[in-house]
Amino acid sequence: MIPRYSRPQMASIWEPEAKFRIWFEIEAHALDKMAELGVVPKESAKAVWDWWATNPPIDVARIDEVEAVVKHDVIAFLTWVAEGVGAEARFLHQGMTSSDVLDTCLAVQLKRSADLLIDDLDQLLEVLKRRAIEHKLTPTIGRSHGIHAEPVTFGLKLAQAYAEFARNRARLVAARDDVATCAISGAVGTFANIDPKVEAHVAEKMGLAIEPVSTQVIPRDRHAMFFATLGVIASSIERLATEIRHLQRTEVLEAEEYFSPGQKGSSAMPHKRNPVLTENLTGLARVVRGYVTPALENVALWHERDISHSSVERYIGPDATVTLDFALARLTGVMDKLLVYPERMQKNLDRMGGLVHSQRVLLALTQAGASREDAYRLVQRNAMKVWESDGELSLMELLKGDPEVSALLSAEEIEERFDLGYHFKYVDSIFERVFG
Amino acid sequence: MIPRYSRPQMASIWEPEAKFRIWFEIEAHALDKMAELGVVPKESAKAVWDWWATNPPIDVARIDEVEAVVKHDVIAFLTWVAEGVGAEARFLHQGMTSSDVLDTCLAVQLKRSADLLIDDLDQLLEVLKRRAIEHKLTPTIGRSHGIHAEPVTFGLKLAQAYAEFARNRARLVAARDDVATCAISGAVGTFANIDPKVEAHVAEKMGLAIEPVSTQVIPRDRHAMFFATLGVIASSIERLATEIRHLQRTEVLEAEEYFSPGQKGSSAMPHKRNPVLTENLTGLARVVRGYVTPALENVALWHERDISHSSVERYIGPDATVTLDFALARLTGVMDKLLVYPERMQKNLDRMGGLVHSQRVLLALTQAGASREDAYRLVQRNAMKVWESDGELSLMELLKGDPEVSALLSAEEIEERFDLGYHFKYVDSIFERVFG
Amino acid sequence: MIPRYSRPQMASIWEPEAKFRIWFEIEAHALDKMAELGVVPKESAKAVWDWWATNPPIDVARIDEVEAVVKHDVIAFLTWVAEGVGAEARFLHQGMTSSDVLDTCLAVQLKRSADLLIDDLDQLLEVLKRRAIEHKLTPTIGRSHGIHAEPVTFGLKLAQAYAEFARNRARLVAARDDVATCAISGAVGTFANIDPKVEAHVAEKMGLAIEPVSTQVIPRDRHAMFFATLGVIASSIERLATEIRHLQRTEVLEAEEYFSPGQKGSSAMPHKRNPVLTENLTGLARVVRGYVTPALENVALWHERDISHSSVERYIGPDATVTLDFALARLTGVMDKLLVYPERMQKNLDRMGGLVHSQRVLLALTQAGASREDAYRLVQRNAMKVWESDGELSLMELLKGDPEVSALLSAEEIEERFDLGYHFKYVDSIFERVFG
Amino acid sequence: MIPRYSRPQMASIWEPEAKFRIWFEIEAHALDKMAELGVVPKESAKAVWDWWATNPPIDVARIDEVEAVVKHDVIAFLTWVAEGVGAEARFLHQGMTSSDVLDTCLAVQLKRSADLLIDDLDQLLEVLKRRAIEHKLTPTIGRSHGIHAEPVTFGLKLAQAYAEFARNRARLVAARDDVATCAISGAVGTFANIDPKVEAHVAEKMGLAIEPVSTQVIPRDRHAMFFATLGVIASSIERLATEIRHLQRTEVLEAEEYFSPGQKGSSAMPHKRNPVLTENLTGLARVVRGYVTPALENVALWHERDISHSSVERYIGPDATVTLDFALARLTGVMDKLLVYPERMQKNLDRMGGLVHSQRVLLALTQAGASREDAYRLVQRNAMKVWESDGELSLMELLKGDPEVSALLSAEEIEERFDLGYHFKYVDSIFERVFG
Repeated sequence: MIPRYSRPQMASIWEPEAKFRIWFEIEAHALDKMAELGVVPKESAKAVWDWWATNPPIDVARIDEVEAVVKHDVIAFLTWVAEGVGAEARFLHQGMTSSDVLDTCLAVQLKRSADLLIDDLDQLLEVLKRRAIEHKLTPTIGRSHGIHAEPVTFGLKLAQAYAEFARNRARLVAARDDVATCAISGAVGTFANIDPKVEAHVAEKMGLAIEPVSTQVIPRDRHAMFFATLGVIASSIERLATEIRHLQRTEVLEAEEYFSPGQKGSSAMPHKRNPVLTENLTGLARVVRGYVTPALENVALWHERDISHSSVERYIGPDATVTLDFALARLTGVMDKLLVYPERMQKNLDRMGGLVHSQRVLLALTQAGASREDAYRLVQRNAMKVWESDGELSLMELLKGDPEVSALLSAEEIEERFDLGYHFKYVDSIFERVFG
Repeated sequence: MIPRYSRPQMASIWEPEAKFRIWFEIEAHALDKMAELGVVPKESAKAVWDWWATNPPIDVARIDEVEAVVKHDVIAFLTWVAEGVGAEARFLHQGMTSSDVLDTCLAVQLKRSADLLIDDLDQLLEVLKRRAIEHKLTPTIGRSHGIHAEPVTFGLKLAQAYAEFARNRARLVAARDDVATCAISGAVGTFANIDPKVEAHVAEKMGLAIEPVSTQVIPRDRHAMFFATLGVIASSIERLATEIRHLQRTEVLEAEEYFSPGQKGSSAMPHKRNPVLTENLTGLARVVRGYVTPALENVALWHERDISHSSVERYIGPDATVTLDFALARLTGVMDKLLVYPERMQKNLDRMGGLVHSQRVLLALTQAGASREDAYRLVQRNAMKVWESDGELSLMELLKGDPEVSALLSAEEIEERFDLGYHFKYVDSIFERVFG
Repeated sequence: MIPRYSRPQMASIWEPEAKFRIWFEIEAHALDKMAELGVVPKESAKAVWDWWATNPPIDVARIDEVEAVVKHDVIAFLTWVAEGVGAEARFLHQGMTSSDVLDTCLAVQLKRSADLLIDDLDQLLEVLKRRAIEHKLTPTIGRSHGIHAEPVTFGLKLAQAYAEFARNRARLVAARDDVATCAISGAVGTFANIDPKVEAHVAEKMGLAIEPVSTQVIPRDRHAMFFATLGVIASSIERLATEIRHLQRTEVLEAEEYFSPGQKGSSAMPHKRNPVLTENLTGLARVVRGYVTPALENVALWHERDISHSSVERYIGPDATVTLDFALARLTGVMDKLLVYPERMQKNLDRMGGLVHSQRVLLALTQAGASREDAYRLVQRNAMKVWESDGELSLMELLKGDPEVSALLSAEEIEERFDLGYHFKYVDSIFERVFG
Repeated sequence: MIPRYSRPQMASIWEPEAKFRIWFEIEAHALDKMAELGVVPKESAKAVWDWWATNPPIDVARIDEVEAVVKHDVIAFLTWVAEGVGAEARFLHQGMTSSDVLDTCLAVQLKRSADLLIDDLDQLLEVLKRRAIEHKLTPTIGRSHGIHAEPVTFGLKLAQAYAEFARNRARLVAARDDVATCAISGAVGTFANIDPKVEAHVAEKMGLAIEPVSTQVIPRDRHAMFFATLGVIASSIERLATEIRHLQRTEVLEAEEYFSPGQKGSSAMPHKRNPVLTENLTGLARVVRGYVTPALENVALWHERDISHSSVERYIGPDATVTLDFALARLTGVMDKLLVYPERMQKNLDRMGGLVHSQRVLLALTQAGASREDAYRLVQRNAMKVWESDGELSLMELLKGDPEVSALLSAEEIEERFDLGYHFKYVDSIFERVFG
């Protein structure tokens, strides 16, 4: 966790205190059920919850101190609880194994993280929708290979981003549900010393599904799927960030990240307004993506479990969720306040001398009876002149003056093909598909 | 594609001929709809399909030859079609762009691949289920950290694998549906020169959903999710393969890959029976996993599209699906014919002098009034003696002879804790959860 | 190996025939030494080499046929050799293990691959140097964050690329030497049944160093380093490819990939000239980079060896080297024939109304006594006006008209700061550093 | 940085205070040279160093406060320095750009990190050497595929690890030298406003080489190579950790991580002694390896630079070096105190009924005139009986009783092939190769 790239709500999920609170709840709910089942005294559960009701501060330092001796985090935690509760605490954790607590806690943390990330996505979606509608018919050039192609609208670009992040939202919901399971099944998952009803009770209390078959641990394919999904979302962030970076290039300048009054772009070049937020997002996407492979490598634990996954998760659990939360919020801010320059978009659209309409002319020629090859040749020879003139010449005028073309199409028919509105007739349909 | 790791059905999806057949279908179905809409002559569509009905061999060499000149694969293909159909073919591809064909074709190929992989998973699940039921109550030692823990059954190990691959099946179905979209939307996705009804028609004919908003290309987050899901499945393969490799170790030898009569394990050591199939699967898992990151990197194309994704997909499209298909089939074969040695499992279970029952004794002591710490100490001091004797001493006997223990538990009470059956009382419940 | 992205010389290294030739040489050289040491009859070695001197065609089909029965590739190969040589062949492979042949063969293949890649780099370096010198003083705008910064020369861009690929060459030489070792040490690397002198002899004959300590296999950290180095080179390719793609953007158009007369850029837009080669290189870089992680995962083999690395290497050995060879050659071609447009570079340089000189003015103001903050403020307020005019206003004129500025700097002193040549005074020094 | 996996010396390199100290030195040394060159007043440099000589505490909070306003870290730092030094500080940073400071600082940090890691490797190498010599002739079974192969010594295993880490040391030295360059070249690397002599001076003072051609930034192929090298080292750590984990398995138990008196292996199973340190190292290796790909993705910056690399480096700079430092130290501790059980090694060696000697018998039969195929068949049929008896039968006795075998070899000749010492005759030679 880099403070610079953390937001408090997500970061707090991963703090020791939050973890110990979840541990307590898991242990105490389990104790409740055991008491109900008559396995442990009812007084034990009562004592434990009574102590908790006093709202005892979580003494992380003390727990760490015990762990330094016993080298076991859950035992250290239980020791600290016992110091507060007294003798009744000895029934806690009965028939359970550490991983019952650790893995169920991780499930809670990942679920809570996912919920925050889903909120983040919802906010991003809202902004994207608003700005897409705002620019539904703002003409801009569509580019393939970085080369001017045909007109689109700026709203369409944003509608695409919306659709992509809506898919990501659905994927994240699935990944959250995949990872949100509870296992209270004992040393090797057989429930040898604990009734499966305890697991069911804890699962319900913690908002989790039960893990159908655990083996001391919850299987790590669930976590792999979770982090892989975050990696996909990060890649979508990179896509939109890259779009903004391109639009802000000096030569393009169709949009800009909001530039606050006190901000200095460069210590050396005061005129510079750099797309530093989206460049930063590009880097953060790499970071989140980098956690996918370790998560995949965590799946193949030895036999019923080994603990190699644990250190990996200490890094990537917080880092992937905190970073992605920050990145989504930053992206939402960028898109919310993005400075959009429609005049510049129009200017760029016009700079190619009408080449962007060549496809329509090509079709008109074909429909007028030219073979595909001939039509292509006729358009290309005029298009090349425009291209080489750097937009000084007009494709429309050249076509009108080309005898082979005018043999097939009248001047009026040629002019018709240079109508920008023609390209936008289905924008409403596409918006309907995306926004319903 | 490595022939050694390919199966014909999956490989054939990726052959040039299969690709060109799909291209034809996309173009011809699009033409049908355009004819119906009155955009092109009905005779054109008829001529194209009539030619196809003659079942013309796909002349890959000729198409390659044209491509070498025009440096454009779809134009080369259309030229070849025109050579067969004649002048009527000139209406093909009208208003479309190459990516309409290429991306929709890739969607078809990935969908077909996914269908085969789902079949593979079904076969694996069937085998896992059969063998899980066969060994539902075959006792074996559960191991955490590679160290003997408590008893499980071999059927439970397989039930876990079943549940994991059942999850993977569900994930793959979702990933397949995610990637199976059709885009026929023209140069920059605006349908400027083509009616969206054409897209809807082709989508239906090819068994795809429509892409709500495309930008010449289908967005690559869909493909990223697809390949990420294959990476998760590969990791689960590695997990089960690693389990078999461990079980076949000389010192463990609880199961073995089937060993055919003619097979030589080693040119140097004729007695060796190596788990080469599961070792191979471990490697293949790395290979499939390696394709996840390039797929993620493919998402952030420039503006409406750049073509950097294309070369990546030429590798990973075939390689990931063909390799995973082979790996799933190999794993199914391994599990189907796996030699399982219950006697050896029992022998290994017994070799620790009863240490695997220590947890139960610990609980009994606690319930008899010992503090958790005391119970732990009493069990540990006897357990250590057994451990150091390498299983020669019996934990049960030592406990009976320990005065502090016998003050709390009678000999009979101690013996009760060494009952193996005790651990398996919930096996049926777990099987019920997994297999329903 | 994708034929489209393969060149014959590199591909041939990885063909079965080439592999079997290397196997033969390893086995036969080992036999020679064993004969010299008196371990096997001299006639055996003679018989084997005599047969080889008849230049027998490598019967890959026959070897595959035997392998299908014995399921062991080296035994299959030796069987085929024995079929040709006769009884004397039985002394071949004595005291050796399969990996002695396989791993030493892989070392030879990787070394030969590296040699080709080093040649590729040399050709790229030559082209980069030539074009760097050609454009040593061609002015162009330097860009940070995609935003115009200060002037550089196009030659400097190329000199940077040269320096980067020269580093890559040095890294590859190191990686080649790292991976080029020979192990002929028997079943577990103890030389139990073979004299280390055999290893030394084979190493010398095959152009390899001896592996100081092998364990049936050559340790895979060597290969990991090799493929990691290829991943770095691929990333440098991506960097230069990305530069060209940016320069070819419609709005920038300072350079273009060579465009051959018959080439069609798009089936729909005949005017388009797309940077498809460098986009392709961007994708190929992802592919090669994707092989780094599997290679790293191959290092941790179990005990003296397991065979999980083998399937991985069957993919990445050929794919990484063949793809990188193709990519380097393609990049060399792109850079060799790159169309460079100095007039457009100058036009772009001028379009910002002189903003690129703002840093110099800032310094002049500081030297004239302004505080850094004041100087910054003065430059920024004028720079912003130019920026907002989209280059219509001139920074120089605005500064002359700003009373606070003219209080510190005369018109002449301001003009001096707008001299382009000022920026290039150290270009020679930098070239001297890079090209010596 | 996870405190649990951090050591103070390495962590301190990455603390804000350390960073600002390096920034100061870079700026102040640059100022010195500028003063010497007459570009700035000598008093300025004196004033700055005089202030530094008062050992002012680094006020990180103040610098952060300024950064929050100006959104630029280097300007914030310089503002804080100016607050301490006074007006003379205005000459600092003249002609420089932020990256001159940031990138040179990162080079210093990575160099210092590398130096610590090299120290770590030296300590690991020392321990490995000592323990290798200690166990030079401790017999143990060599295993391929997890299956018993032929005898090796435990010292040979450690000698292999030594050789591997010695290679890693050499690679790290190369990577350190690759990344340790200084760039003080101004806004786009042209030295427009700064004399290259300043760069040379700062480089010398900071212990760096000069960067031959920078472009505002130091090229990131250098960093990519650095992190890739850390990834290789991490993979070697995983290899040795995996070896220990295997040796500590209950069924193998040839070695164990040191087990401190107060340590509890499991909250549930008090007898367990788990290889948690080496499992942890396996996970940490995944973590470090995960940083390789983001570092490779950082290479392809746009034009002269974009800032996407920066956020990535904020994570992986500290995380990769701190984690690897911790892991190397932990591995050194594990190997230093590793409990080695030679009796158990011997017991395991013997458990296969002499099968490990089968290769020698095979060779003896071949030398006695049997064809390779016959020899293989004879050994295999007896070996299989031993294998199936689970080591109860003795291969030596079976061979003596096999008439086809005894027709070729006398009982004495058979017995000779079961001599363990035979396998170790070249151990000294191998040690000589490794340790010199």
